[in-house]
Amino acid sequence: MDYFKESLKLHKQHQGKLETGLKMSLNTKDDLSLAYSPWVAEPCREIAKDSEKAYEYTLKANTVAVISDGSAVLWLGNIGWIAWLPVMEWKCALLKEFGWVNAFPIILDTQDTEEIIQTIKHIAPTFGWINLEDFSAPRCFEIEERLKAELDIPVFHDDQHGTAIVTLAGLINGLKITGKTKEEIKVVVNGVWAAGVAITKLLLLYWVKDIVMVDSRWTIHKERDGLNPTKEMLTDITNTACILDPDSKECIKWWLTEAVKDRDVFIWVSVAGALSQDMVRSMNTDPMIFAMANPTPEIMPDLAKEAGAKIIATGRSDFPNQLNNVLVFPWLFKWALQNRVNKITDDMKITAAKALAAYIKNPTVDEIIPSPLDRWVADEIAKVIK
Amino acid sequence: MDYFKESLKLHKQHQGKLETGLKMSLNTKDDLSLAYSPWVAEPCREIAKDSEKAYEYTLKANTVAVISDGSAVLWLGNIGWIAWLPVMEWKCALLKEFGWVNAFPIILDTQDTEEIIQTIKHIAPTFGWINLEDFSAPRCFEIEERLKAELDIPVFHDDQHGTAIVTLAGLINGLKITGKTKEEIKVVVNGVWAAGVAITKLLLLYWVKDIVMVDSRWTIHKERDGLNPTKEMLTDITNTACILDPDSKECIKWWLTEAVKDRDVFIWVSVAGALSQDMVRSMNTDPMIFAMANPTPEIMPDLAKEAGAKIIATGRSDFPNQLNNVLVFPWLFKWALQNRVNKITDDMKITAAKALAAYIKNPTVDEIIPSPLDRWVADEIAKVIK
Repeated sequence: MDYFKESLKLHKQHQGKLETGLKMSLNTKDDLSLAYSPWVAEPCREIAKDSEKAYEYTLKANTVAVISDGSAVLWLGNIGWIAWLPVMEWKCALLKEFGWVNAFPIILDTQDTEEIIQTIKHIAPTFGWINLEDFSAPRCFEIEERLKAELDIPVFHDDQHGTAIVTLAGLINGLKITGKTKEEIKVVVNGVWAAGVAITKLLLLYWVKDIVMVDSRWTIHKERDGLNPTKEMLTDITNTACILDPDSKECIKWWLTEAVKDRDVFIWVSVAGALSQDMVRSMNTDPMIFAMANPTPEIMPDLAKEAGAKIIATGRSDFPNQLNNVLVFPWLFKWALQNRVNKITDDMKITAAKALAAYIKNPTVDEIIPSPLDRWVADEIAKVIK
Repeated sequence: MDYFKESLKLHKQHQGKLETGLKMSLNTKDDLSLAYSPWVAEPCREIAKDSEKAYEYTLKANTVAVISDGSAVLWLGNIGWIAWLPVMEWKCALLKEFGWVNAFPIILDTQDTEEIIQTIKHIAPTFGWINLEDFSAPRCFEIEERLKAELDIPVFHDDQHGTAIVTLAGLINGLKITGKTKEEIKVVVNGVWAAGVAITKLLLLYWVKDIVMVDSRWTIHKERDGLNPTKEMLTDITNTACILDPDSKECIKWWLTEAVKDRDVFIWVSVAGALSQDMVRSMNTDPMIFAMANPTPEIMPDLAKEAGAKIIATGRSDFPNQLNNVLVFPWLFKWALQNRVNKITDDMKITAAKALAAYIKNPTVDEIIPSPLDRWVADEIAKVIK
C-alpha cells in the first residue's frame, strides 16, 4: 500500500474523520414539538432552576472538548493551528470508538497563555470535560493548573497524564520480564516537555528512585543556571546522585551519550534525534527502551534488539509494544464522566497503570502492553480503577 | 400524550440530542496508521503548506459552530448560558437531519460583546461557518458585523436572516391568496429585536412600502427621543407616513392597539403579549397574521380566524403554517458550504424566499409554507438559489 497517498485519500474522501449525529428520530410533528417548540422549554426550565440538570438533559453529560493551539506538535514542530486538525479529529474519533464518549475538536487561533485560558473558560459550559492537547511546555502546566482552579469541570492534559500512565504500565511489565525492581532500576528520560515531566513524576510516585532527565543541552541538575521553574523543580527530585567533578566540585555536565551509560531504562519523549546502537550497548544489561518519537522512533526496533535491548517499545502501530495513550484516555474519560469524577488523582493514575499492565497475563518482550485495537481493555480497567 | 413529561423523558433518555461519530472505520492496524501515526502527518503537512487544504482534509469543510450566549431566549427571557443548551442541540440536530451539515453547539459563559467577539475569533479555525444564535439586539448587530469583517469564514445570524427569509416566503404566498400587492399592503411589525429588524429590512428590499414597527412602548418614529442607533436608523425607512397630531405637530405616539388599525399584515416577533380579537377586527379586510411567539402564539389560530383573519401563521409544529427557520437554514448552510459561498447577500435571501414560496404550487390559507418535515424542500431550493 502507498500509505502516503492512502492517507490523503482517506482524509479527502470524507472531508475529515469526525461528524455529528442525532440521538433521536425527527420524523413526526410530535418529534418536533417534543425536541423543540414548544416542549424543549421544559428541560431548559429545569436547567435554569438547577444547572446540575444539564448533566441529565444535554450532551454535556458525555461530551469532551479536545482543545489545542497546535504549539507542541512533536513530530512536526509548531505548525500552528489549522494544520493540526487531522490529529485532533483523530483523538475525538478514538474517544468515540473506544470509549463511547462524544468529543469535539477545538483549534485555537492564539498561542497566548492568557487568551487561551479565557477562551476555554468562555466555551466550557457545553462540555463535561476539557482535554488539553499538544500545548507546549512549560505553558501547558500553567494553563492546566489555572483552568483546574477556575472551572467546575475536569481539565486534563492527556499528553502528560495519559502518556505517563501508559509508560508506567509498560515499565511495570518490563520489570516483570527483566526481573529488575522499581527501587533498583536507573532510568533516563530524554525530553523535559509535557510528557517527560509527567512520566518522571508518576514513576517517582510509583517509587522508582533514580531518574535522570536530559533536555536538548544537558542533564537537569542542581548546578545548572537559567533553568525555567519546571526544570528547577525537577532538580529536587531527579538526578539526586549528581556526580561531582573532583576538580571543579561542579556537577558533571552529562550529555545524553553520558547519561545513557549504565541505565536500565531509556524513555525518549523528545522532539527528534537518534539513539545509536553504541548508546544502547553502553546501557546496563537487558535494557528497556521506550523510543516514542512519531513517526520515526529514535532507534528502529531491530537495531535496538541487535545492540542488546531486551525490550523495545515505540509509539507506532506497525511495531509490537505500541505505547500510545489511546490505551488510556478513552476509558478513563468514559469512566470519569459516568462517575462524575472531577479530578484524576495520582492514586488513580497508578491504579490505572497497574490495571493496564495486569491486563497482559503473561507479558513477553513483544507484548508488554495491550493492543490499542483491543476493545476489552476499557471495560476491564474501568472495573478496577476507583 | 403528556408532552411535558415526554419531553423531559426524551432529553434524559439519551443525555441530550446530539452526538459525534466517525466517518471511517477503525478496525485494523492500517486504519490506525493511516488516520494517525505515522501517516496522519501527510494531511497535516499539506494543510501547513496551504491552509485552504483544511477544506479538503478535515471536518472544517462541512461543520458549523452554533454559538449563543443565551441572552435572547425569546420565550424564556435571558435565562443564561447552560439552560439554553437543549435548544442549541436541537438546532444542530436539524442541520444534520435536514441539511446533512455537521454542527456543534457552543454556549458562551459571557454576555460581554468584546469577550464574545474575541472568543469566537479564537475558536473559529475548526469551523467552516459561524452561526450566531439568540444573541440579543442591538448587540447582535455589532457582533455579526465585527465578526464578518474580522473572520475569513461566513458569519450568519439565523435569528435575523433565516426568520426574515421564511417570513417573506409566507408573505409572498399570503399575497397570492388575498390578491393584494406588495406595494399597497400596510404592514405592522411588533418587536424591534433581531428578527423584527431583519424582517423589516428584507420586506423593504422586496419592495413592500409601508411598514410600521412597534417596540415595547410605542411605534418607532422620527419624533421619538432616546432611540438606540438601530431604532434611529429605522425611523428613516419605516413609518415614513408618520401621522402628525394637528395641534402639537408631533408624530402621534401610537400604541400597538392604534398601530394595528387598518393594517393588512401583522407580524409579531416580540417577547410576549396578546393580540385581541378586537385588534384583529380593527385591521384591513382579509388580514394576515404571523403570530410567531413560542410556545404560545399571541393569538390562537381559531380565535384569529373567528375575528376575521384570512391567514394565520405561527411558530408551532401543531398548527398549520409553521413559520420556522428550519425551512431555511439547513439547506442554506449546506448550499453555501458546498459552494464555498462566504456571504449571504440580500439578493440570495430574496431569491430563497421566492423559491420557498414557489415550492407550494397552490397556496391555500392553511398552506402558505412547506412543512418543516418535508425533506424535498432543501434540494429544490438549492437548485434555484445562486
